[in-house]
Amino acid sequence: MKPILSILGGDMRQVHLARLLLEDGKDVMTWGLEQGGAPKGVSLDRALEGDVLLLPLPVCRGERLNLPLTDTELEASRLWPRLRYDQLLLGGMTGDLGRRLMTDHGLTLLDYYSREEAQVANAVPTAEGAIQLAMESTDRTLHASRCLIIGYGRIGRLLADRLLALGAEVTVSARKYGDLAWIQAWGCQSVQTGALTGQLERFDLIFNTAPALILDGTRLRETREDCVIIDLASAPGGVDQTAARRLGRQVILAPGLPGKVAPRTAAAAIRDSIYHILEERGEPI
Amino acid sequence: MKPILSILGGDMRQVHLARLLLEDGKDVMTWGLEQGGAPKGVSLDRALEGDVLLLPLPVCRGERLNLPLTDTELEASRLWPRLRYDQLLLGGMTGDLGRRLMTDHGLTLLDYYSREEAQVANAVPTAEGAIQLAMESTDRTLHASRCLIIGYGRIGRLLADRLLALGAEVTVSARKYGDLAWIQAWGCQSVQTGALTGQLERFDLIFNTAPALILDGTRLRETREDCVIIDLASAPGGVDQTAARRLGRQVILAPGLPGKVAPRTAAAAIRDSIYHILEERGEPI
Amino acid sequence: MKPILSILGGDMRQVHLARLLLEDGKDVMTWGLEQGGAPKGVSLDRALEGDVLLLPLPVCRGERLNLPLTDTELEASRLWPRLRYDQLLLGGMTGDLGRRLMTDHGLTLLDYYSREEAQVANAVPTAEGAIQLAMESTDRTLHASRCLIIGYGRIGRLLADRLLALGAEVTVSARKYGDLAWIQAWGCQSVQTGALTGQLERFDLIFNTAPALILDGTRLRETREDCVIIDLASAPGGVDQTAARRLGRQVILAPGLPGKVAPRTAAAAIRDSIYHILEERGEPI
Amino acid sequence: MKPILSILGGDMRQVHLARLLLEDGKDVMTWGLEQGGAPKGVSLDRALEGDVLLLPLPVCRGERLNLPLTDTELEASRLWPRLRYDQLLLGGMTGDLGRRLMTDHGLTLLDYYSREEAQVANAVPTAEGAIQLAMESTDRTLHASRCLIIGYGRIGRLLADRLLALGAEVTVSARKYGDLAWIQAWGCQSVQTGALTGQLERFDLIFNTAPALILDGTRLRETREDCVIIDLASAPGGVDQTAARRLGRQVILAPGLPGKVAPRTAAAAIRDSIYHILEERGEPI
Repeated sequence: MKPILSILGGDMRQVHLARLLLEDGKDVMTWGLEQGGAPKGVSLDRALEGDVLLLPLPVCRGERLNLPLTDTELEASRLWPRLRYDQLLLGGMTGDLGRRLMTDHGLTLLDYYSREEAQVANAVPTAEGAIQLAMESTDRTLHASRCLIIGYGRIGRLLADRLLALGAEVTVSARKYGDLAWIQAWGCQSVQTGALTGQLERFDLIFNTAPALILDGTRLRETREDCVIIDLASAPGGVDQTAARRLGRQVILAPGLPGKVAPRTAAAAIRDSIYHILEERGEPI
Repeated sequence: MKPILSILGGDMRQVHLARLLLEDGKDVMTWGLEQGGAPKGVSLDRALEGDVLLLPLPVCRGERLNLPLTDTELEASRLWPRLRYDQLLLGGMTGDLGRRLMTDHGLTLLDYYSREEAQVANAVPTAEGAIQLAMESTDRTLHASRCLIIGYGRIGRLLADRLLALGAEVTVSARKYGDLAWIQAWGCQSVQTGALTGQLERFDLIFNTAPALILDGTRLRETREDCVIIDLASAPGGVDQTAARRLGRQVILAPGLPGKVAPRTAAAAIRDSIYHILEERGEPI
Repeated sequence: MKPILSILGGDMRQVHLARLLLEDGKDVMTWGLEQGGAPKGVSLDRALEGDVLLLPLPVCRGERLNLPLTDTELEASRLWPRLRYDQLLLGGMTGDLGRRLMTDHGLTLLDYYSREEAQVANAVPTAEGAIQLAMESTDRTLHASRCLIIGYGRIGRLLADRLLALGAEVTVSARKYGDLAWIQAWGCQSVQTGALTGQLERFDLIFNTAPALILDGTRLRETREDCVIIDLASAPGGVDQTAARRLGRQVILAPGLPGKVAPRTAAAAIRDSIYHILEERGEPI
Repeated sequence: MKPILSILGGDMRQVHLARLLLEDGKDVMTWGLEQGGAPKGVSLDRALEGDVLLLPLPVCRGERLNLPLTDTELEASRLWPRLRYDQLLLGGMTGDLGRRLMTDHGLTLLDYYSREEAQVANAVPTAEGAIQLAMESTDRTLHASRCLIIGYGRIGRLLADRLLALGAEVTVSARKYGDLAWIQAWGCQSVQTGALTGQLERFDLIFNTAPALILDGTRLRETREDCVIIDLASAPGGVDQTAARRLGRQVILAPGLPGKVAPRTAAAAIRDSIYHILEERGEPI
């Protein structure tokens, strides 16, 4: 039998998720998304009867459920006792919450965001969002601009590909020889992260994707005055903000791009991930 | 001997032009650009002594010189009598002004914008600007979106290439068999403009580059409600605005993108064009 | 009523043309293609009864019809008197033969190869064929190789795009500023043809597409010993063969690539061109 | 002090390796490569005095050293006793030979080919070689052809990128959801390997990169008669040869492409890998 999917709170991605699931013919209820215009809104009591509860991304902000699109507030600790062990909870960036819910309440919480396919699918809007930010914050084209990407993870790879395709001159820094070989194989210039010092002056744009303080004061001093720096790493990011301010460098912090620039695409990634989880557990979808 | 270049008015492109010419070691004076922070500002009297007078793009707005970056106003008809026949005037989108100035005042005015290399160099920021607008106005990624480009001129070609590289599914419409063959050779789907009717429902984004009313009421009715239309053609554009409003379609008018999204790149195009004109006339540069 | 299409002689492209027309459900007869395994072979008498006569590409070799796939020979001058004024003759690279046939015999001969769409559609296999030759004749990858393309016509454009995509470092030379701007817009290095001298040593591969003697002795002397030169221009090509031999440079002459490397694709281009001609003349297809 | 590098046997890659090391100013001796025109040839006795001994790729063919470019034969078992524990041995595809040499003879043998950067660097010429083979074995262009790539490892990824860039319609099959997400992020069609059955008829070309029997008799029967299959997996490959022969399918076995199509590039990959090994061991280079 088709499970009833309850979407509890979250941002515009959850609103789009509701629409996408409806388009697929699923049984959907939503709660806590009324300011986003989500369909199928119900009361919390009703929503908690769902077979699968789809929690926000991230699940909580502090002690409360992550509810930016409603005026209601909800302590997470008051939610868990109301749930049943036979319900499946799916949330984003759940960290160790899954383990705690199982131990304390016997609840099953799985992460729809940590799966490789979700990470990749989110890297696409992140790379596009970074390009949009770069376009908005410079007075030149990306075409013929000299770009440095720090880090060659998922986002670095896709960003390098897209920038190259737009006609930028792309250099990517990485630590491992294998990554350097990949960077060259994809047609970019490569540089070992450790050897960046002394090479930074020529870049019009620097994108940081590495979760490490690569752009410290010494390196920032090497960048040009009109260099634009876009930091895509999660907080605390990879740029020494104090030094950047002192030097007058423009640093754009850009965490959480998918939900901002392409919530519909981000929602589709969540949807797919949810389907894969259900499929792997042998649940009906 | 090095000619003295006077930049008279214009927008941020002229400000960047002044900087770029200075970086090249040219003798530059500017007038009418003070709100843009242009270097080397002088009085109008002084500016009119230059050997080469660089006029705005377009030269005039109505009867007046195009002066968005100063509080002064200047009737064009009062400017011409103050110029000498041995000065070279260079302006953008001069239309038939050159012929009139020669006939009425014996002045030589050439167009730095109509040359093929300037048109191509401006198509690059136009294509990028269109992509930026598309990113800003949709809630999905360009990646995997279905895009239609109407018209396969300079802008259409570059835009198709960039969209394809970003992972969009790109269809381009054109009238001539030769253009349709080019569209296929570049890896896009092609459709004859006349055969567009009946095929419009599947597009998430439509970019019009053709200076003709292709998207009339009948065709607009075929587009999806959430379809975003970006009109890059000069006024009056290629979209029936009244019908679009009535149908609730989002139409973004986007003329003059290079000066808005990448004035520095647009200025470099003007600079190169100026150099080519001087070189071809055997003038010193 | 459906016209009867007679294919008279030609190479493997005509054999594939016969198959493609049959796949489209056309009425087809062939003559002079038996060694290529063409379907629907008939006698010459029979073939000459067709409504549309599809002649080879090129139509003649010297005084004879171009018949590489049969042992029969046929003087062209003996063929024309046997044709009727109400038959439509279509041939490839017809030069001034069309005018002569009209004047001398009242026959209508049109060229299916000179149309823009046919030229573009043939540039695709030419560019691919050039890449295949380059791969076969070097002991390194195209990836990371330094390539020069002389000339920015149809073939130059597509070849530049494909080489760039394979990871080569691509420089294109052209004469006109407009072309140089296009070359840069597509992400390649540009160089004015006149300024090539002094820059040739760094190239691993040189592709000539220009119908002019650019690579004379002086310039060839500048190329590296292990430089491979692929001449795609029609005879006499753009390379001083004598000088190249004396210098020991490897020059690969590669005219007529589409028929050699991708006869099926080349045949599809001819087919499309034929359909367009018939359509424009209001003939049934 | 600079180490003396002895290259012992191998194919054209080792000949190019000798040249590349000399270009870098290294101390090089070679033995067993005379038919390839290798520089610095010496006697075996002399060669065995090197500080670093560079063995072939693979090291042995059966019981003998892999010596295709000399008439001499050399039992591997007679070589090892002549080497000293303070010499560094580097070979390609060493398998468990390293462990055996250490146990039996106290010798240190490391693999210059198994490192990630060498594998990536070799995937580039493999992908190009596959494209060359595909061009040579079809009568159509890769442009507009429908290609299936089975497997999304290093070679699959690069091959997909290159084919797409040449204008092919590219589908890639993989097992894992993460890989399927990557395939889509790069702009290709994805299909789960398990779901290939029933979808094979539409492909003009199939490239197998997976070391598993995916193309068994059942699936081969689904392919079109004129489908060309290129098997890039190591022996025994991924195609049921018997079934293919019976069905008349053209299967091209293509192991070891880098050494065949681009030995110079393959040699550069080996050189880089050797430098990295020496650097990581703190040896002088």
